[in-house]
Amino acid sequence: MREINVGIVGTKFMGRAHSNAYIDVPHFFDVPFKPVLKAACGRDAESLKAFARNFGWQSTETAWEKLVARDDIDLIDICTSNVTHMPIAVAAAKKGKHVLCEKPIAMNADEARRMLDAAQESGITHMVAFNYRRAPAIALAKQLIEQGKIGTIRHFNAVYYQDWLVDPGFPYVWRHDVKEGGSGAHGDMSAHTVDLARYLVGEFEAVNGVQEIFVKERPSTDGKMLPVTADDATYFISRFQNGALGSFLSTRFATGRKNYLRIELFGSEGALVFNLERMNELEYYSRTDEGLAQGFRNVIVTENKHPYINAWWPPGHIIGWEHTFIHEVKDFLQGIAEKKPVTPDFFDGWRCQQVLDAVTESSVSQKWVSIAV
Amino acid sequence: MREINVGIVGTKFMGRAHSNAYIDVPHFFDVPFKPVLKAACGRDAESLKAFARNFGWQSTETAWEKLVARDDIDLIDICTSNVTHMPIAVAAAKKGKHVLCEKPIAMNADEARRMLDAAQESGITHMVAFNYRRAPAIALAKQLIEQGKIGTIRHFNAVYYQDWLVDPGFPYVWRHDVKEGGSGAHGDMSAHTVDLARYLVGEFEAVNGVQEIFVKERPSTDGKMLPVTADDATYFISRFQNGALGSFLSTRFATGRKNYLRIELFGSEGALVFNLERMNELEYYSRTDEGLAQGFRNVIVTENKHPYINAWWPPGHIIGWEHTFIHEVKDFLQGIAEKKPVTPDFFDGWRCQQVLDAVTESSVSQKWVSIAV
Amino acid sequence: MREINVGIVGTKFMGRAHSNAYIDVPHFFDVPFKPVLKAACGRDAESLKAFARNFGWQSTETAWEKLVARDDIDLIDICTSNVTHMPIAVAAAKKGKHVLCEKPIAMNADEARRMLDAAQESGITHMVAFNYRRAPAIALAKQLIEQGKIGTIRHFNAVYYQDWLVDPGFPYVWRHDVKEGGSGAHGDMSAHTVDLARYLVGEFEAVNGVQEIFVKERPSTDGKMLPVTADDATYFISRFQNGALGSFLSTRFATGRKNYLRIELFGSEGALVFNLERMNELEYYSRTDEGLAQGFRNVIVTENKHPYINAWWPPGHIIGWEHTFIHEVKDFLQGIAEKKPVTPDFFDGWRCQQVLDAVTESSVSQKWVSIAV
Amino acid sequence: MREINVGIVGTKFMGRAHSNAYIDVPHFFDVPFKPVLKAACGRDAESLKAFARNFGWQSTETAWEKLVARDDIDLIDICTSNVTHMPIAVAAAKKGKHVLCEKPIAMNADEARRMLDAAQESGITHMVAFNYRRAPAIALAKQLIEQGKIGTIRHFNAVYYQDWLVDPGFPYVWRHDVKEGGSGAHGDMSAHTVDLARYLVGEFEAVNGVQEIFVKERPSTDGKMLPVTADDATYFISRFQNGALGSFLSTRFATGRKNYLRIELFGSEGALVFNLERMNELEYYSRTDEGLAQGFRNVIVTENKHPYINAWWPPGHIIGWEHTFIHEVKDFLQGIAEKKPVTPDFFDGWRCQQVLDAVTESSVSQKWVSIAV
Repeated sequence: MREINVGIVGTKFMGRAHSNAYIDVPHFFDVPFKPVLKAACGRDAESLKAFARNFGWQSTETAWEKLVARDDIDLIDICTSNVTHMPIAVAAAKKGKHVLCEKPIAMNADEARRMLDAAQESGITHMVAFNYRRAPAIALAKQLIEQGKIGTIRHFNAVYYQDWLVDPGFPYVWRHDVKEGGSGAHGDMSAHTVDLARYLVGEFEAVNGVQEIFVKERPSTDGKMLPVTADDATYFISRFQNGALGSFLSTRFATGRKNYLRIELFGSEGALVFNLERMNELEYYSRTDEGLAQGFRNVIVTENKHPYINAWWPPGHIIGWEHTFIHEVKDFLQGIAEKKPVTPDFFDGWRCQQVLDAVTESSVSQKWVSIAV
Repeated sequence: MREINVGIVGTKFMGRAHSNAYIDVPHFFDVPFKPVLKAACGRDAESLKAFARNFGWQSTETAWEKLVARDDIDLIDICTSNVTHMPIAVAAAKKGKHVLCEKPIAMNADEARRMLDAAQESGITHMVAFNYRRAPAIALAKQLIEQGKIGTIRHFNAVYYQDWLVDPGFPYVWRHDVKEGGSGAHGDMSAHTVDLARYLVGEFEAVNGVQEIFVKERPSTDGKMLPVTADDATYFISRFQNGALGSFLSTRFATGRKNYLRIELFGSEGALVFNLERMNELEYYSRTDEGLAQGFRNVIVTENKHPYINAWWPPGHIIGWEHTFIHEVKDFLQGIAEKKPVTPDFFDGWRCQQVLDAVTESSVSQKWVSIAV
Repeated sequence: MREINVGIVGTKFMGRAHSNAYIDVPHFFDVPFKPVLKAACGRDAESLKAFARNFGWQSTETAWEKLVARDDIDLIDICTSNVTHMPIAVAAAKKGKHVLCEKPIAMNADEARRMLDAAQESGITHMVAFNYRRAPAIALAKQLIEQGKIGTIRHFNAVYYQDWLVDPGFPYVWRHDVKEGGSGAHGDMSAHTVDLARYLVGEFEAVNGVQEIFVKERPSTDGKMLPVTADDATYFISRFQNGALGSFLSTRFATGRKNYLRIELFGSEGALVFNLERMNELEYYSRTDEGLAQGFRNVIVTENKHPYINAWWPPGHIIGWEHTFIHEVKDFLQGIAEKKPVTPDFFDGWRCQQVLDAVTESSVSQKWVSIAV
Repeated sequence: MREINVGIVGTKFMGRAHSNAYIDVPHFFDVPFKPVLKAACGRDAESLKAFARNFGWQSTETAWEKLVARDDIDLIDICTSNVTHMPIAVAAAKKGKHVLCEKPIAMNADEARRMLDAAQESGITHMVAFNYRRAPAIALAKQLIEQGKIGTIRHFNAVYYQDWLVDPGFPYVWRHDVKEGGSGAHGDMSAHTVDLARYLVGEFEAVNGVQEIFVKERPSTDGKMLPVTADDATYFISRFQNGALGSFLSTRFATGRKNYLRIELFGSEGALVFNLERMNELEYYSRTDEGLAQGFRNVIVTENKHPYINAWWPPGHIIGWEHTFIHEVKDFLQGIAEKKPVTPDFFDGWRCQQVLDAVTESSVSQKWVSIAV
């Protein structure tokens, strides 16, 4: 099998999930390349070493510039904090390396646009890691929508609930710093729900939101109190170009909810409900079901014929959150091999970022903000 | 509207539920008679008085023999402890009064048979209060089965869970005395699940069970410890005449479950699941649903076209447990007016009792026991 | 027992639910008055007659003015379309009659204020039929909040989903006419969620919403197409005075949802979730639960110690939607007897209406609108 | 890191799941050995080759005797059909190789006993792949039980539902042949629930069951009808040595259920419910919760402090079915390194098999069968 040399930047949560994906993908899918874990890059030498050892990365770099400069790397995978996405991606694109970038794509839409331009100029294959598109249940939702099973979509209502900031004593981390992350719950969580909305409904027309910081300062590791500048929660409502209404709630103060991303779609012919904490299930309602027995079906999305599942296990044997990355890498490698665009790419990342920026703007201006076409 | 004079025996839990049913039924259903709450009978004068006042019973009796002897009573409703069902019902039947009798019909199948014989001889209309048949979701299940939606039934699995005896300090009551109740959890709870099995699947062929008393004695109200002689829990497996397998678990030691009657039916074409704690819902699976989107539908059984619902509220406005009695009384009155049998009648009560008796016998003999045909 | 003479205006859905409540309340609760169903009022003589017969109303009127003028009426119950609430209530108050009024209280906040003023001047007891406050699960939620179990509330997220307008062929009814109803989904459905928010969280500070009519005209019964002027759906976000964020989605286009009112409260110490289609359940999460075993508890709100339940059945025997009205009438009668205010009263109705009006205004102005203090 | 050379027999469903486990375990857990995928063994050369290539097995054998004879293999992993478990395991044990064997351990208890004897004589480390013990939710259940949270267990009720045989046209496979599998649903599915019962409750005292073949013959691939000799469904009830009652239903005719293993434990202090299709969740009820707010908690078992989870992802990011094998291999390697027994071992496999055999015997004799002590 042909090989493809991967260089990864970032060794934490996402770095681990992506590493696992590169390793596992050829065991289950018929991919055009076998990914070679060529080089890992991180700022902290100690944890970089442990990371490389755990996952078998063959070499390490402590500066991303060096990684990007290496000739033996074909693909750059960006798992760092948001502020570095743009410079790494642009540099990698200029060197002709394919780029898989974590979400949100950038600090703002301008950065995202620069990334898209660089990618298009160099002709690389690019992708943004909106991995939930590749949960089989979401991919199935997309199929049902494309088959017209839901009809004209009237409502897309999303919540993304976590609760890890409820405790005011939870320490200050980079995610509290708007300069490091661009935003807080909004960029981290709304990015996913906005991408799913674009995927399943279509483009946004206008948005109107509010952002809140409930706990204004948090203790740093050295005990000093630091001001929180990134939002704890963002709520917004929206109109879509197709006339649907949208609602998006993202918060890290949803006590008891761990990683609860729920979306509800209501259309003229049916409805769909998805909840990430039960990501192997999709609820589906059809108005065409016989009248006496209409109801939301709970589809266990683990059948051979369901998206991606044929590679895995028999019905009812569920897959995990990390599998979404394996699916993502599989499709990315295929795109590279076939020189065909994959989605969500930097265009999608940029469009998503426009929506996110518009919400932040509306929160400040207290007005509806239209999304540029 | 014509009137029908009701005499009730028993003023507790069931007496209250039945009283409410007689009062409410003409407000919502087009019934042939308006029930008149003519006389209530109870052993304790004090609580009888309060009961009569609360529900508007026009007169009282403290001996059921007197009630049954009264010429101004058309219908005797039996809500007493099981040991008295047979004598009251037989006496009432002999006097030509229609009888609605609480479940289980009697202490044993012999008693039940005497009741059935007496009822048939006198030509009265008779009914056993297996009220769950008239939960709209169960009535809908019956319809779907009759339409062939489930196909050949392979499995009928029932549990009936309560937890009010978990605490060993819970005091001794009549339900702990096998001489008063005939049995414990078995007669009280399995009676319902066995009736539902007969209603939805058909007749039993043979049963095999085990009964257990976990807490061997309990404190009476005067502090003395009394031996418990009625089962805390009964488990049994069964074969049905149509080849299906059955499982029945009844227990008052299911910690955390309050009145959790769950049945699961699996057939060659579909499946049904019902849970009494969510009695307005019915889960339905159809193998004929399109392959990509098969799953258990949660049918909210509150549509106009659902059984009994047209009389009530718009979709999604749920009804309560007590409404099953209103439906029961409605159908009973109709049966009386049309001189047509209603089900479940004393025949059903007797057949159910045969199954219950066979389980108890198998628990003693430790062998399978066939149900007489 | 003392009696209280009731006169009802409106014979449809709510008229039936209220009638049932007056009849059933003395059977289960120890009320200070026995309600006498003295007179029913409706515009259509035919259906009025059937209504009176079904529920036993002793007399009828076809003009509410006549009903209000009658000396033998102590209590006026208003179940008519919204446009008539104010004139009836004000007239009744002036005549010194107690008033129970369906929600939303009026066409707008000005009308509501007039009703409140009239009620306060005459010293009557007044109530708005926000019946969901008296679902035992909601009353329990209130208790838990008051005990501090949830801590500082950060989020109140409500949806109210119905789907009876999904079909474009569904005929034009008065609810489509903004002049008759004041608004559509908003007044009918948001009224409930706004009231629950005020009850459980506190007063609103500001709101920002959007309203939509998806199907612009509908066929009247004579086949003519009539323009729909009342909203099919209203979305809004809010800030509360205590700093919490709120989200409110009301729609009649939520395909598959029948009467699905779901609220989620997240606080610094715990969380609560309620869903009207499973109104006997309350989900509760506590951060004080032992770390290994934290999770949302599904509380079946049918225990003796739960609000209102002692009057009903043993644990696990659920009650229905209509019972909320029985609880409402019970508390209303008690308030009348004790000459103490009951809530929600016309003050609450007025405050709720202010929020509803502000949302409508924000939908037009496309700006946040503050709620007057 | 030290290495351990693995030889696997069987290349299908379980071969794939185990291969994945050996590969992934060192990426996430601090294991004493790095497993080397030394040799894979299968009868069909073609599919063996593909299997070895997909997962990186370094060499292949087509006879298990040759694999077991190789000196460069430290650990034999048995993923073949049941009839071959015993000879392979005994041979491997005699050669001093550690053995991980799929479940059920053997064709019957005698075989299992021979395996146990061989393992004990040679001093190897041995394990049976009852992988569900290592679902974090089950491991948590075990912890809660050991902490006394459930108290004295009264009931253990298990169902294991699949539906892949509902269609009578589903072709004949080795699993229909009692000579190849020992039994059908029973050995395949009850093996799991019996093991879980032994793990969570303790030893069985006696069992009483019934077995059924609903579809008596099935088409082979060449179109001939072959008689089905392995059970489609097995039901049994049991007594445990501690006085608890048990119920076990296994069927491949549970239309709509894919891999639905549900267990319910009720004890004197609390209760637990687990469902494999939602394997990241555990329902827990505690009688010590405050009275107003008791209910089944839905614990999302994805917290750092939950068993095995620290190695994976943040809260709410669920893991899949295959992860149970990774946990299994992790503990097995640790046992080998520390020369300490791991459970479930061949003793557990043997005891489980005794229960399974007793059920089969009871199904024939139609009597209760005691489990030898």
